[in-house]
Amino acid sequence: MGKRDNKTGLVADWKSLEKVFIRPENDSGKQTLIKYMEQILFGLHDFLNTHVGVTEEISLKELTDDFRETRINQDPEKKLAQVITDIIDEIAPKAVNVASPYFVGHMTSAVPFFMVHLKTITAALNQNVIKLETSKVLSVIEKQVLAKVHRLIYGKDKGFYEEHVQHVESSLGAFTAGGTTANLTALRVARNTLFKPRNGFDGVEKHGMAAALKEYGADRVVVLVSRRAHFSIEKAWGILGAGSSNVIPVDVDEQHRVNIKKLNSMIKEIQKDGKTIIAAVVGIAGTTETGSVDPLKEMGEICRKHSIHFHVDAAWGGPVLLSDRYAHLLDGIAEADSVTIDCHKQFYMPMTSGMVFFRDPWAMDTVAYYSNYVNRRGSVDIGIKTLEGSREANSLILDSALKIMGARGYALMIDHGIDTAQKFASEIEKRQLFELAVPPRLNIVTYRIVPERLQKELENSDPGHRKRINEIVSGINKNVQRKQRERGKSFVSRTRLRIHQQDRQASVVLRTVVMNPMTDIHILKEILDEQEGIFKELCCD
Amino acid sequence: MGKRDNKTGLVADWKSLEKVFIRPENDSGKQTLIKYMEQILFGLHDFLNTHVGVTEEISLKELTDDFRETRINQDPEKKLAQVITDIIDEIAPKAVNVASPYFVGHMTSAVPFFMVHLKTITAALNQNVIKLETSKVLSVIEKQVLAKVHRLIYGKDKGFYEEHVQHVESSLGAFTAGGTTANLTALRVARNTLFKPRNGFDGVEKHGMAAALKEYGADRVVVLVSRRAHFSIEKAWGILGAGSSNVIPVDVDEQHRVNIKKLNSMIKEIQKDGKTIIAAVVGIAGTTETGSVDPLKEMGEICRKHSIHFHVDAAWGGPVLLSDRYAHLLDGIAEADSVTIDCHKQFYMPMTSGMVFFRDPWAMDTVAYYSNYVNRRGSVDIGIKTLEGSREANSLILDSALKIMGARGYALMIDHGIDTAQKFASEIEKRQLFELAVPPRLNIVTYRIVPERLQKELENSDPGHRKRINEIVSGINKNVQRKQRERGKSFVSRTRLRIHQQDRQASVVLRTVVMNPMTDIHILKEILDEQEGIFKELCCD
Repeated sequence: MGKRDNKTGLVADWKSLEKVFIRPENDSGKQTLIKYMEQILFGLHDFLNTHVGVTEEISLKELTDDFRETRINQDPEKKLAQVITDIIDEIAPKAVNVASPYFVGHMTSAVPFFMVHLKTITAALNQNVIKLETSKVLSVIEKQVLAKVHRLIYGKDKGFYEEHVQHVESSLGAFTAGGTTANLTALRVARNTLFKPRNGFDGVEKHGMAAALKEYGADRVVVLVSRRAHFSIEKAWGILGAGSSNVIPVDVDEQHRVNIKKLNSMIKEIQKDGKTIIAAVVGIAGTTETGSVDPLKEMGEICRKHSIHFHVDAAWGGPVLLSDRYAHLLDGIAEADSVTIDCHKQFYMPMTSGMVFFRDPWAMDTVAYYSNYVNRRGSVDIGIKTLEGSREANSLILDSALKIMGARGYALMIDHGIDTAQKFASEIEKRQLFELAVPPRLNIVTYRIVPERLQKELENSDPGHRKRINEIVSGINKNVQRKQRERGKSFVSRTRLRIHQQDRQASVVLRTVVMNPMTDIHILKEILDEQEGIFKELCCD
Repeated sequence: MGKRDNKTGLVADWKSLEKVFIRPENDSGKQTLIKYMEQILFGLHDFLNTHVGVTEEISLKELTDDFRETRINQDPEKKLAQVITDIIDEIAPKAVNVASPYFVGHMTSAVPFFMVHLKTITAALNQNVIKLETSKVLSVIEKQVLAKVHRLIYGKDKGFYEEHVQHVESSLGAFTAGGTTANLTALRVARNTLFKPRNGFDGVEKHGMAAALKEYGADRVVVLVSRRAHFSIEKAWGILGAGSSNVIPVDVDEQHRVNIKKLNSMIKEIQKDGKTIIAAVVGIAGTTETGSVDPLKEMGEICRKHSIHFHVDAAWGGPVLLSDRYAHLLDGIAEADSVTIDCHKQFYMPMTSGMVFFRDPWAMDTVAYYSNYVNRRGSVDIGIKTLEGSREANSLILDSALKIMGARGYALMIDHGIDTAQKFASEIEKRQLFELAVPPRLNIVTYRIVPERLQKELENSDPGHRKRINEIVSGINKNVQRKQRERGKSFVSRTRLRIHQQDRQASVVLRTVVMNPMTDIHILKEILDEQEGIFKELCCD
């Protein structure tokens, strides 16, 4: 099996095995374990602090050169101390410093340091919340935390939560591996509720999509969602056997929010053909690319009227509900039949944890599975209705974080992100070289570099010429983004958006996510300065 | 939104927010962070050591009483120090001590202490391996570790691994949230490969199951798997829109291994009807209930002959390949088109992490998704082909663990489990009160209590009477298992198995998983003693 020979002199024997399983009783042994933690916390800490830029400049070729060995060594290669040292010295500098306030390109950021402690606790307890027998109180905490966030979203009355918070058989939601499996769970519930058992047909989960469409007299079943949707919606529909091409994009307005008129006319048209069923309409609270929030209230009303499942993907925006100042931006979210929120995004938890919620505490009954050895009928095992099987107790981290931060602590971060995004948008509008793509609604800002000469050409051109100019501008922005990333001082990302209604094609824009509370307007100005500098170099070289 | 008032005097302000994001520079601040880690490591450590039993005896009612509040507090409720203290004093005693060598009921156990350190590192780095821009070298490490385990399974030649270990576009496998999503990924690849694009049909992922069945001229598509399969296989097929009832159980022999004759005749019969396609045959390397290993070699040959996708669910048994003494038990695994292995099982990693492997490095092309802001075409982003979106860098933990333990270190644990299971089986056979259900193949032992009087009755009875006796015996075993669990000194689980070929119905059996290296035959004897004691109390009360 191609294992390698011993070169280190380390051997695997029963004595060393016992050592790693039986924690030390004596002080010196304990001190060693603590010393390792110190190394981890402050070795990495030094990297995170001194390494101001986001990553070392290094080519993919160079990066992979040291990671080509594919044999597993027979004997131990390193002790823990050496592993930690190597990670600090060799790995961390080649990782991405997502904690840097100059890292504003993606929805990954610094986490409060206590999150690392909480993750350590979860690992040390190593509970498996698939079933009560391997989690006990952690299953109970999971149900409680889900009820807390459910209440934040839906605000049902006290009696509702008293009934369901620890109800053995109902489910207010579930923790998931992330936003993708949360969306997948929501759409699976929508699919299974739509094609539920009737007249000897046992339902789509049991008999499959082909049998379900036959039973319900349809050719296909579709989901309607904004053109700005995360690709996990399409992926989920593809996984569910309904076909990713049956996710129908709805046009958006200039704010990149679902166009309600279009949505209405699409529903009307689809319902006319008689052979297509709409399984769900998905609204987005915080699109990945622009941070836009769909008109949730109107969408909810439309869905109610037509009895269509309304899912809200609030993977990004959900925690905005904790802010008294900005919760109103998500008005209408309580109309949703299901809601996705990610913990590793604006709940600032370490990778990865998602959640999905259902207005109806019995909705998840449509996705239940039982077995003889766990998840028996009538048991309180949470794993009965989750898509994932074994799962760590991430609820303990969220529960603790809510206690340490309070709603107000989270609100400070939410408010800072939105306020700073506004300031950043103003700054962009002030600068000659830049064009704001979408006025920010939450804390995501999209913009692009458009040199003055090309700006003028764009203003006075026919569509064909505009297209050519936009392609040149796209090339410029792509190059500046790449160059900035390679320099490793700061990082913004890029995507493609249709910025002007008169253009048919999408153009490259720069994308900034303001979630790190240490990212302030001064840092964002520096980032613009750097982009101006790079642009000048590129255009004059 | 029902938030609560401030009772603690703690307030959320910008100053405290900065404190949790900017790590302390001065020694006293650093010492505080270390002190917390000490509390975590040794506070929980004391619980894990002094709390010999597996859990405090407490009713579900009592357990839930303290966890009914559903409002999120506006202000902070606790400081980190208090949270940690409360977890140690209030939560941990109501959790399950899965690290106890007396906890032998499930596939969750103690982990080497260094795993907790490695998880801490992963949380502190907080990389997101969905894309290179948020993970860089961690994406590279993931590819390398996957290649290492791929080589352990498939043992292809050096050139193969040199080509693919860091190939930008091919994939030897993927890390997943766990075994369930690994199996789901494998069956999705099988589904998509079977119903691939042809003649203007864009494939099942795009057009859905109904269109695919129509294009390929079939009524349904099935998966064949042992009756002992984990329920995630059915769940996966249900999620995929193929219908959970289209997972067809194959009968097993007395060792609870797939009956090859039956498998052959079932394939023949299904292929005769002309309207049913077999998408996959699944072999199991370590069934959840009995630890049985299917005849992988023969199954592989049958699949090759009929061009059927052969998936092996080695979630449990995979790491047995690291043992020179026992790797042969998995002979034939290299015949698999795809293989599932869990990291949080016999790789002894903290919850949760799974992996799926494919013999064909291009097989995962059938599940690729792209978008404009990440996972662009031609990029090296790992998230293009994974079912999950954002993901933590669990590969760093496995990579480090393999270096610290070596293959031989893991082999010691594997060998200990299998050897101890053999000893345990002998001990059960020696004791009058017990009946061994299945001779252990790996490290899982199933058995039951059968009082002498009932043993005799079983031997000399007609089927109807046997059924009644077996029901009484099942009741006894259920009660003993429950009572032992409630006492909280040790924990075995229970399931239902058809033990004797002459019985049609399944009976309750006790189930022991020997994975904790600290679980030795003396402890297992104590557990049997306790069961004898409980039985005597129950029968004589």
